[in-house]
Amino acid sequence: MLNEMVDRVLEEYKSREIEKVFLVGCGGSSALMYASKYALDHEAKTIDSDLYSSNEFIHRHPAKLSEKSLVILCSHYGKTPETVNAACFAREKGAMTVSLTYDPDSPLAEASEFVIVYEEGKEQPFLNDAHAIMYELVFGLLYIKEGNPKYEAIIHSLAALRPVIEKAREQALLAAQTFGRTYRDARIIYTMGSGANYGIAYWFAICILMEMQWIHSHAIHAGEYFHGPFEILDKGVPIIQLVGLDETRPLEERSLGFSRQYGDTIITLDAKDFDLSEVDDQVKGYIAPLVLHRVLRVYAEELANARNHPLSTRRYMWKVAY
Amino acid sequence: MLNEMVDRVLEEYKSREIEKVFLVGCGGSSALMYASKYALDHEAKTIDSDLYSSNEFIHRHPAKLSEKSLVILCSHYGKTPETVNAACFAREKGAMTVSLTYDPDSPLAEASEFVIVYEEGKEQPFLNDAHAIMYELVFGLLYIKEGNPKYEAIIHSLAALRPVIEKAREQALLAAQTFGRTYRDARIIYTMGSGANYGIAYWFAICILMEMQWIHSHAIHAGEYFHGPFEILDKGVPIIQLVGLDETRPLEERSLGFSRQYGDTIITLDAKDFDLSEVDDQVKGYIAPLVLHRVLRVYAEELANARNHPLSTRRYMWKVAY
Repeated sequence: MLNEMVDRVLEEYKSREIEKVFLVGCGGSSALMYASKYALDHEAKTIDSDLYSSNEFIHRHPAKLSEKSLVILCSHYGKTPETVNAACFAREKGAMTVSLTYDPDSPLAEASEFVIVYEEGKEQPFLNDAHAIMYELVFGLLYIKEGNPKYEAIIHSLAALRPVIEKAREQALLAAQTFGRTYRDARIIYTMGSGANYGIAYWFAICILMEMQWIHSHAIHAGEYFHGPFEILDKGVPIIQLVGLDETRPLEERSLGFSRQYGDTIITLDAKDFDLSEVDDQVKGYIAPLVLHRVLRVYAEELANARNHPLSTRRYMWKVAY
Repeated sequence: MLNEMVDRVLEEYKSREIEKVFLVGCGGSSALMYASKYALDHEAKTIDSDLYSSNEFIHRHPAKLSEKSLVILCSHYGKTPETVNAACFAREKGAMTVSLTYDPDSPLAEASEFVIVYEEGKEQPFLNDAHAIMYELVFGLLYIKEGNPKYEAIIHSLAALRPVIEKAREQALLAAQTFGRTYRDARIIYTMGSGANYGIAYWFAICILMEMQWIHSHAIHAGEYFHGPFEILDKGVPIIQLVGLDETRPLEERSLGFSRQYGDTIITLDAKDFDLSEVDDQVKGYIAPLVLHRVLRVYAEELANARNHPLSTRRYMWKVAY
């Protein structure tokens, strides 16, 4: 059922001692690994994990990086220099390196011991999506090393997810168009989430709003909100609030309740509003950010349309040296 | 040399098996622990660590939280409900709990197995400052469990730090006044840092700018900058760039170089510009954020003065239910 590149990694796990997982990438590629950090924290009884931006990983040089480490890296084109260097650095330390990339011939693919080529597009099996592969690698590890009971549920739920996501995207279209029209002139839009969703809030803030739309933003952690950031809330301060289905949902419900009471431009994306009946109940919390991610992509497209500012527009990236 | 409350904790380490450290707090109290996460990552050969906002810690419920965990918590007044609950939660799981607070009679003090009361004000020994105590606890652990060779250098450098900081604050006053005058009408000010400094960048963004000045902000990680956020840079977008002395300094130098090339409102605080000759060379990277923190406090005061918006002004905190 899994593609053979994933199967090879799971097979390799059996003969390796793994006490720590490092999740390493930059920007959007780092953000898509965040839910896996959440899953490892909540599930792993024997395995520790950390998530770092690639250059931070290299320079911080964690003392625990060793031949007992699994380092999972991700870069879409496989050319991100910091991530390629991180793979080389990790291999030098004897770690098992597994890279996710869209391009099987990229420098990252070449630098890594194991390579998994992910696919995009709705005609592809969702099991080959980058977010899905992250869970296959992480829950596969938890299953093989600790007998984690949720592995089968994750795989079956991921396998069933393509139509769930397409339906959610269609359902969100009108709200996304309204969002685009309403906030086309916004100078700042915050995003907020907690638990497994925080990475998606971060992705929308830095990759969509800041990078692709040049709109000021900040991903606020829903639990941190009440310890500083909430003082910025006022009428006319837009906040996109994600509400998921994991153990931290009460944090997101609390921040939403407060924002709705004192703000008037709160955009809510609640995973409960989408039909997740094909997703196993025990893993709905882990799957929710994958659905919210795809729904938010519709919001991004509609915002770009309403602003006549294509998502591909850049000032610096691919244009100047940095 | 250390106060007896710290000594008691270090003594207790000797009879406890500790395989994981959890750093738990909210807002500014969480931010001041961040440098300790950096130190643990870079130094600890056998001990893992994670840093969570208090409510995230409880709801995420890390599977590794156990009687082999050390949970360090912090709350200034010791009344933050999420942090008090986190202490209770950690004790239920058998973890060793150590709380830092300004108030020895607070609910957090009562809820924790060990309490360390920190002090503020320049007439107090710097060893009793909250940031200093964090390092005493963390390097003390590394010394006792792993024989870490930097422990003595950390303690001596912290003991010598009060005049270093006072001198740095005086040195920064004129620049801070200029900052206040120049940015008194700014609607958004970003902060940026990496490594041990990132927590200070986060603190200034969420506690000073958002909470106390109602100015939009976001702490950008200097390594992540080039993977999304830098597209927001333009003339007139203020960025406070911290430049420290730890292993990640090249990341901060790189983001600074780019920002200076394409922006024109970049405020630089470089630890190299202050006299740290009393600080041991091998721990300067860890000490730099403590100095930058106090210098930034001068910037905060001067910004508040220039805007006639006292740092104590609140819309919601202490005023409404949340």
